[in-house]
Amino acid sequence: MSSRISRVVITPVAFGDPPLLNVVGVHQPWALRAIVEVHTDTGLVGLGETYADETHLARLEAVAAALPGQDPYDAHGLRRLVVDVLGRETGGAGASFGGMLDVSSAVDTVYSPFEVACLDLVGREVGRPVSDLLGGAVRDRVPFSGYLFYKWAGHPELPEDEWGEALDPDAIVAQARRMVDGWGFGSLKLKGGVFEPDAECAAIEALRAAYPDLPLRLDPNGAWTPETSVAVAERLSGVVEYLEDPTPGIEGMASVAARTDVPLATNMSVIAFEHVAPAVAAGAVQIVLSDHHLWGGLRRSALLGGITDTFGMGLSMHSNSHLGISLAAMVQLAAATPNLTYACDTHYPWKTEDVFAPGVLSFDDGSVAVPSGPGLGVDLDRDLLGELHEQYLRCGVRRREDTVYMRSIDPSFRPNTARW
Amino acid sequence: MSSRISRVVITPVAFGDPPLLNVVGVHQPWALRAIVEVHTDTGLVGLGETYADETHLARLEAVAAALPGQDPYDAHGLRRLVVDVLGRETGGAGASFGGMLDVSSAVDTVYSPFEVACLDLVGREVGRPVSDLLGGAVRDRVPFSGYLFYKWAGHPELPEDEWGEALDPDAIVAQARRMVDGWGFGSLKLKGGVFEPDAECAAIEALRAAYPDLPLRLDPNGAWTPETSVAVAERLSGVVEYLEDPTPGIEGMASVAARTDVPLATNMSVIAFEHVAPAVAAGAVQIVLSDHHLWGGLRRSALLGGITDTFGMGLSMHSNSHLGISLAAMVQLAAATPNLTYACDTHYPWKTEDVFAPGVLSFDDGSVAVPSGPGLGVDLDRDLLGELHEQYLRCGVRRREDTVYMRSIDPSFRPNTARW
Repeated sequence: MSSRISRVVITPVAFGDPPLLNVVGVHQPWALRAIVEVHTDTGLVGLGETYADETHLARLEAVAAALPGQDPYDAHGLRRLVVDVLGRETGGAGASFGGMLDVSSAVDTVYSPFEVACLDLVGREVGRPVSDLLGGAVRDRVPFSGYLFYKWAGHPELPEDEWGEALDPDAIVAQARRMVDGWGFGSLKLKGGVFEPDAECAAIEALRAAYPDLPLRLDPNGAWTPETSVAVAERLSGVVEYLEDPTPGIEGMASVAARTDVPLATNMSVIAFEHVAPAVAAGAVQIVLSDHHLWGGLRRSALLGGITDTFGMGLSMHSNSHLGISLAAMVQLAAATPNLTYACDTHYPWKTEDVFAPGVLSFDDGSVAVPSGPGLGVDLDRDLLGELHEQYLRCGVRRREDTVYMRSIDPSFRPNTARW
Repeated sequence: MSSRISRVVITPVAFGDPPLLNVVGVHQPWALRAIVEVHTDTGLVGLGETYADETHLARLEAVAAALPGQDPYDAHGLRRLVVDVLGRETGGAGASFGGMLDVSSAVDTVYSPFEVACLDLVGREVGRPVSDLLGGAVRDRVPFSGYLFYKWAGHPELPEDEWGEALDPDAIVAQARRMVDGWGFGSLKLKGGVFEPDAECAAIEALRAAYPDLPLRLDPNGAWTPETSVAVAERLSGVVEYLEDPTPGIEGMASVAARTDVPLATNMSVIAFEHVAPAVAAGAVQIVLSDHHLWGGLRRSALLGGITDTFGMGLSMHSNSHLGISLAAMVQLAAATPNLTYACDTHYPWKTEDVFAPGVLSFDDGSVAVPSGPGLGVDLDRDLLGELHEQYLRCGVRRREDTVYMRSIDPSFRPNTARW
C-alpha cells in the first residue's frame, strides 16, 4: 500500500517500418520507441512507451534517475519532478514527430510514459485495470480505424515489404481491402498530403465506391491552403466524416471552418493545452485528436476529453508508429472516455514486431477488447525487448527524420506543407 | 478488490443555523443536510454529504435503491445509473439553494455524494487518502477564508446566538476579529447583498482598516446592476482580491468585466459545465468558484479545475452551510487541485454540531490539515448522527427557503437581486 519507486529502466527499441509517405517525407526503415519500466520496492513493474528521439531519450533518462523514492499514486509530485529535472531545457517536444509538430514545452511528453507506468503500477497493486482508475470502462471494446498510407513497394536497397506499392486510388482501395479483411476495421483514414489534392480526393471517392457505408477520413497534415481546403471540403462534403488538418495553424483552420460544414479535426494545430483556448476562441476545429503521449498521460488526456465535451467539440485519437504498450494505454484510456465516440487511429497493423508476443491485444471487427486484468494488461517479453533493443543499437537511427530520409533519396524534395 | 455496493443509507439531518442574512432573505433556524452511507459486501462504509431539500432527498433515495451491485470504482457507470434513475425528472437542481441558483439538470448534484462515497470506499479499500486517488496532495494544509455575514442577534422567538447582531461595519469588524482570533483565517469574505452598496463598501473599508494585509472578498449574490457593480469595483479597486457575483448572469458579469480591472468571481452565473463555454466566450469571469456538491463530485470538480487552468481563469471554492463530511471532501479535493490558489470558502465556523466528534478536522492558522488516513479521513459517530436526524424529524424544515422564512418575519421583503 505504500510502495515506492525503486528504479526505472528506459530501453530504446527499433522496429521495422514500411516506407509510408506523408507531407514531410517518408518513414525511415526503422521506427524508434522507448520502453519505460518503473520498478517498486514491492517487486512490481509498471510499463510505459514513448518516442525515442535522442533528445527525448536524454530527458527520459534524467527524469528516471530522479524517480526512486517517489509514490506511484503521486501524479502531481511526478509532474513537479519532471518540471524540476527539465528546468529550462524544455524547448520543443524533444521528439520531432517527423518535423510535423511543435509544442512550447516538453513537460507533457516527458511526463507521459512515467504517468502511464505509475497507473499500471497502481492498477497492478490494487488488482484493477487502468480503465477502472480512470473512472471505469464505458465500453468493453475500443474501435479503431484502418490507417491507409501512400507508400513505396519497399525502402530503397531493401527488400519489398508485404504491402507493396500504393500510389494511386486503386492501390489505396486494395490496401483498404487488406485492412478491412484482416482486421475488420469499420472506418478508414487516408494519410494524405503526398499528392496534389485532386488525386487524394479521387482516392477517397474510390474508397467510398468500394465501401459505401464506412466512415472515411482524409488527413493531408496541412498540405493545403485555406482556399484549397474549402474546395476539397465542398467536393468531399457528405463523403468524409471529417477532414483532418487540411491547412496549418489555428488561424488557417478557423478560416476553413467558417466556410464549410464538413467537420474539421486536428492533431497539428491543437496538440497541447496552451492551444485549446485560442482554438476555441477562433472556432478553429470541431474535433480534437487526443494522444496521451503528447498530452501528458492518461489523466491529462481524460481532462482533454472533458474539455472537448464541455465546449461541444468532438474527440478522436491520434497515433504515431507505436508498439503494444502504447496500444494497451490507448485502449485503457479510450475505454474510460465516454465522449470518445470516433474510432481511434492506430499504426499498429503496419508493424510486425513487438515487445510481447502476439495475441494479447488482437483486433476483431476493427476493435480491441479492453484488458480486464490488473494495470495496462500487458507484460514485457524480455527476449523480444532485447531483440528490439539490439535492433536499436544496430540500426543507427537516433531520431525520426522523415524529411532528411526522403532527401537522401530525392534531394529535390521539400515538405508539402501548405503547398497546394 | 472486487467489492460491490451492498446497501445505501440516506439520513437527513438538521443542525442549528444562525440568522445569516443574504440577498434572498435569511437562513432558517435549521439547516438541512443528507448523510450518505454506501456499504460494500466486504464490510466497508463510504461517506458522502449533500443537500437535503425534499425533492433532492427523494432523488437520492431513488438512486440509493438502484445502487446495490455497483462497483465503487465505476464512476461512469454510477453516472449512467443516476441518469437512468432520474429519467426526465431532472428539472432544476432539486435543492433550492435558498432560491439563488438554478441549473438545467439535477444529475450532477444527485451524482455527487455517491461519487464522493465511492471514492471514500476505494480509498479505504486500498489504504489511501482520497487526495491520492485524485493525483496526490500538492499541499498538506488547505487554507480557508473567514466567512462574514450580516446577521440578527438571534432568530425571532429563539434565544440569541453567541455571535450577536452584525448589521454595520463595526459589528462586521468585530465578527472578523472573532473569526481571525478563533480560527486564524488569513483572508476574509463578506456576504453582501443585504444593504445598499455604500454600506457594504464601508464594511469592506472598515475591514481593510482593521486588517491592512488580509485579502478581502465581497459577495452580494447579484444584488447590483452592472452600472452599480462598476462603480463599486472602482471604489474597491486595490481593496478586494475579487468581487463575487456583483450582478446576475453571464451577460451582466461580462458587461462589468469589460469595464473594470477588479477580478470578478462567480458561483452563480457559472455553476454547471453547460455555463462554462458561454462564460468563456463572453469573458464574463476571471475566477470560478468550484463546489463538488454542485459540479458532480470530486473528479468532475478536478475537471473544472483543469478547465479553468487551461482557459487562464482562477479557481476558488464555494460553500453552503455544511457538516464535516463535506468539509473532509472539500479538503481532499482542494489538496489535490494544483491551481486552487485562492483560500476556500466555508460556513463551518457557524455551526456547533456535527456527525462526528470535534477535533478530527480542526482549523489552525485558517487552514485544515489534509487527513492522511484512508478515504476521506472521517468516520460517523452514530449517536451524533442519530441526534441530528432526530432534530431533522422534529424541526419541520423540509427545504431551504430563505425568502419564505424572511417573509414570515417581514412580509414586505423581496429579494434584493439586481435591486441596486
